[in-house]
Amino acid sequence: MFKKNLPKKVNVIEVGPRDGFQFEPTIIPTELKVQIIEDLVGAGISQIQVTSFVNPKKVPQMADAEKLVRLLPKKEHVIYSGLVLNAKGVERAAAAGISHVEISISASDTHGLKNAGMSFSQAFSQAKDMIRLAKSFHQTIRASVQCSFGCAFEGEVDTRRVIQIVEEYLEHGVDAVCLSDTTGMATPLKLEYLLGKVIPLAKQIPTMLHLHDTRGLGLVNVMTALLNGVTYFDTSLGGMGGCPFVPNASGNIATEDTVYLLESLGIETGIDKTKVAKCSIRLEHFLNKRFSGKFQHEYLLRHSGEGISPVRHQA
Amino acid sequence: MFKKNLPKKVNVIEVGPRDGFQFEPTIIPTELKVQIIEDLVGAGISQIQVTSFVNPKKVPQMADAEKLVRLLPKKEHVIYSGLVLNAKGVERAAAAGISHVEISISASDTHGLKNAGMSFSQAFSQAKDMIRLAKSFHQTIRASVQCSFGCAFEGEVDTRRVIQIVEEYLEHGVDAVCLSDTTGMATPLKLEYLLGKVIPLAKQIPTMLHLHDTRGLGLVNVMTALLNGVTYFDTSLGGMGGCPFVPNASGNIATEDTVYLLESLGIETGIDKTKVAKCSIRLEHFLNKRFSGKFQHEYLLRHSGEGISPVRHQA
Repeated sequence: MFKKNLPKKVNVIEVGPRDGFQFEPTIIPTELKVQIIEDLVGAGISQIQVTSFVNPKKVPQMADAEKLVRLLPKKEHVIYSGLVLNAKGVERAAAAGISHVEISISASDTHGLKNAGMSFSQAFSQAKDMIRLAKSFHQTIRASVQCSFGCAFEGEVDTRRVIQIVEEYLEHGVDAVCLSDTTGMATPLKLEYLLGKVIPLAKQIPTMLHLHDTRGLGLVNVMTALLNGVTYFDTSLGGMGGCPFVPNASGNIATEDTVYLLESLGIETGIDKTKVAKCSIRLEHFLNKRFSGKFQHEYLLRHSGEGISPVRHQA
Repeated sequence: MFKKNLPKKVNVIEVGPRDGFQFEPTIIPTELKVQIIEDLVGAGISQIQVTSFVNPKKVPQMADAEKLVRLLPKKEHVIYSGLVLNAKGVERAAAAGISHVEISISASDTHGLKNAGMSFSQAFSQAKDMIRLAKSFHQTIRASVQCSFGCAFEGEVDTRRVIQIVEEYLEHGVDAVCLSDTTGMATPLKLEYLLGKVIPLAKQIPTMLHLHDTRGLGLVNVMTALLNGVTYFDTSLGGMGGCPFVPNASGNIATEDTVYLLESLGIETGIDKTKVAKCSIRLEHFLNKRFSGKFQHEYLLRHSGEGISPVRHQA
């Protein structure tokens, strides 16, 4: 029943170095970030969101964006992308040599105001300017809709708003659209409904998904999306991300767990989940905490740390 | 695509007081166990595995089985069941007034030997005796196959062995069969294959599932099973259970998370997940640890403990 409706190959996009790291109050040294990204590339991941070009006063963890990009291993088949929130971010990314950028608009007015300090129409107008600017730098543009499946402040989000944003993005010639489940409110039925609208609109432009596991439905939503034609998923090593104020709160869907699911379904990813798990465990040691992913802990249980580079334990 | 293939109503069987509590090294006082079970009943759960009738030297947490059963609130619509491992357990359950028992055989020789100290043929022959004995006490019998989807020691398990056990159970007139994913190795494709064999064999006898979330696929497997006709799932409050040696290792699928998924699919359970979450949080406070479920933590974040009975914090 399932097997015949599943894709043969799926693209797993690692967003941990941006969406995972940004929530950590402990600054991760640039060198360790670079080592982790190198190891992720070594694990077969070919698309990584490495940083965001944002105000370093607001997000100190990302203050090393330019330095980090300079130190990244250059690999022909690997795409490094950066998140940008405004024209200055696009310019910084271009100057740093990042040719793939992600822009986003929230489908929720309240979230947009709180997160980006802009009304919907301001965000919309700014996004258009950013797309034009990024195009002038020949950057590839992924355009996201935050809170596509609900908003922690507003609850339900109007699906028509999500579709309106996607339509505008497509009209302005973005290279990919991404539906973001910013606060983990997607459910299989919501997902199926929205994908049924967006995929036909996007046509040959890829529809990607950025899922969180806040309420435990992350992988259920992955499976739903697979059965509905999605082949691009953002994931974060070890399930990093989420809320800095709640210990063990779940963030993004974990890279390893997602790869484990995909493998179990006979879907090719090109990724060695054990190598990713070693990166997660290394960061867990460094940050002296446990992330929400399952595979790395099950792996640790079986192998008790064998092959993981030793790092200094934080007090 | 999904909605039309989903059941309208699902039976959630709470197994936390047995499968969750048994792994805790801290003895939970019988009175607290009774309060939790009362609150779970108040949350709308109508079937609870409350204890196991096993050697108290081997499982000290279950030493209070008879006392616990005596103190349980008697409710006409609520079924309390007990796990039994041998004839003595069946007799103890009957003497305690427990009319629903669960027996089990492992599909893995190695697991069976390590767990129950018996070869497969010994376990088989003992199970038949236990069924006869339980029937003489007019007990309702649920018969489980442990390691139905794989074994931590042996890896893959022969599906024919699982089916053979189910066939024997059915021949001996059990009231329900249960496929147990003892070490969290079920995947959607394995599940679909095995359910496709077992459900037609069991006919009007319910086929139940006992899923663990060890590798993160717990709820993906629930959704798969729903689409394949299963309407009975074991769950554990907060996701209690799992391995006592690994902090935060995942155990059973969490009751709250499962109910959240089912609700999101428009499936009726009769259970108030917030009330269950309060029980989980109360136990987390008492045991001074966090379970692996997501919903209770997300709930805590939103409500910061409001309405949760205060209990003594462990050092």
